[in-house]
Amino acid sequence: MSAHAIKARFIAFEGGEGVGKSTQAKRLVAALAERGVDAILTREPGGTTGAEMIRKLLLDPPGSGWRVQAEALLFAAARSDHVAKAIKPALLAGKWVVCDRFVLSSRAYQGLAGGLGDEEVRVLHQIGSDGLLPCRTFLLEAPGEDVAERLRMRDGDEADAIGGRNARYHADVGRGFAGLAQGDDTVVQVDASGSADEVHAAVMEEVEPLLAPTS
Amino acid sequence: MSAHAIKARFIAFEGGEGVGKSTQAKRLVAALAERGVDAILTREPGGTTGAEMIRKLLLDPPGSGWRVQAEALLFAAARSDHVAKAIKPALLAGKWVVCDRFVLSSRAYQGLAGGLGDEEVRVLHQIGSDGLLPCRTFLLEAPGEDVAERLRMRDGDEADAIGGRNARYHADVGRGFAGLAQGDDTVVQVDASGSADEVHAAVMEEVEPLLAPTS
Repeated sequence: MSAHAIKARFIAFEGGEGVGKSTQAKRLVAALAERGVDAILTREPGGTTGAEMIRKLLLDPPGSGWRVQAEALLFAAARSDHVAKAIKPALLAGKWVVCDRFVLSSRAYQGLAGGLGDEEVRVLHQIGSDGLLPCRTFLLEAPGEDVAERLRMRDGDEADAIGGRNARYHADVGRGFAGLAQGDDTVVQVDASGSADEVHAAVMEEVEPLLAPTS
Repeated sequence: MSAHAIKARFIAFEGGEGVGKSTQAKRLVAALAERGVDAILTREPGGTTGAEMIRKLLLDPPGSGWRVQAEALLFAAARSDHVAKAIKPALLAGKWVVCDRFVLSSRAYQGLAGGLGDEEVRVLHQIGSDGLLPCRTFLLEAPGEDVAERLRMRDGDEADAIGGRNARYHADVGRGFAGLAQGDDTVVQVDASGSADEVHAAVMEEVEPLLAPTS
């Protein structure tokens, strides 16, 4: 690493179903590569062999499905494995980490929309992952009607156990995300109703200052 | 249910590997049946479809295995499903529940021997299962050399990811259990070095007073 290396950063994309998180995460990794910055693209739940196995249990649950308590514990377990075996090692090796969903999703889905409580989800993250947080979280937000439309357009897909929940749950998730973003300087709310190029430009405006070499 | 029904009780058997927990749990259920008391026999991790799936991840983990944080979260998730879908419904239906391992195992294995911390394990149990505790826990204890011998005799079996850990870890588990039993009136330490009949007799001596009808 040179004396004036760019500091490795951990960036997360968050938001409800179908707002373009994975598209924007890929765009960011590509933009970083163009600038010579080595970055890994990863996702939650998943990102390691163990966490991907837990992902299967979460998105295709047995029988009547998980109650919110078990669901939150499983997400925290997957995240714990992901942080310890993929995210922290990458950051220590000087690589940026761009992650499609992280703990803000657990706070919005299980903590708020699911009713477990925000403090409970934060405690699980503290125990599982020492409370590691992204340096920046981009919260992609689209007006409610847009999201309903995107969810309808996905009807042909297999809906998973979480994405397939009703519109009211997803509206609660959206309000949960917006509330969590308030008063948290590391969360940047981005209007996701524009084109992918427009959203990417808004993301890069925030990322550019992080690309300054540190001494 | 009659006006003088016997109160449904939740009983757990705990202890290290090979001390006879599952044998004694079966003996207790049989003895209860002889007295006309309906009891379910269950085990951890497991006891429900979902928890048995988590059990597979725990005992046959992917790659390099789980770190203690993820392991504790997975045990808590399995327990949460087990409590909500099997243990509480059985108790509410007036049945006794006899369980081979419960949260004391998580406290001894992950909390103490694994170094996660006892408070952390208790917090996970609070979030996952409202902190439900057995009315009585029988801690089966055998002298260290006996346990080493029993573990050696099991060498022919497939050792699982937890039972297969080294003797030092299992000694830490045994000391952890003993320490947790101190000052906890609900935990009854039983010398497991005697015959199965002797151990069963010691268990029944504690259970008999619980069989008195309540008005």
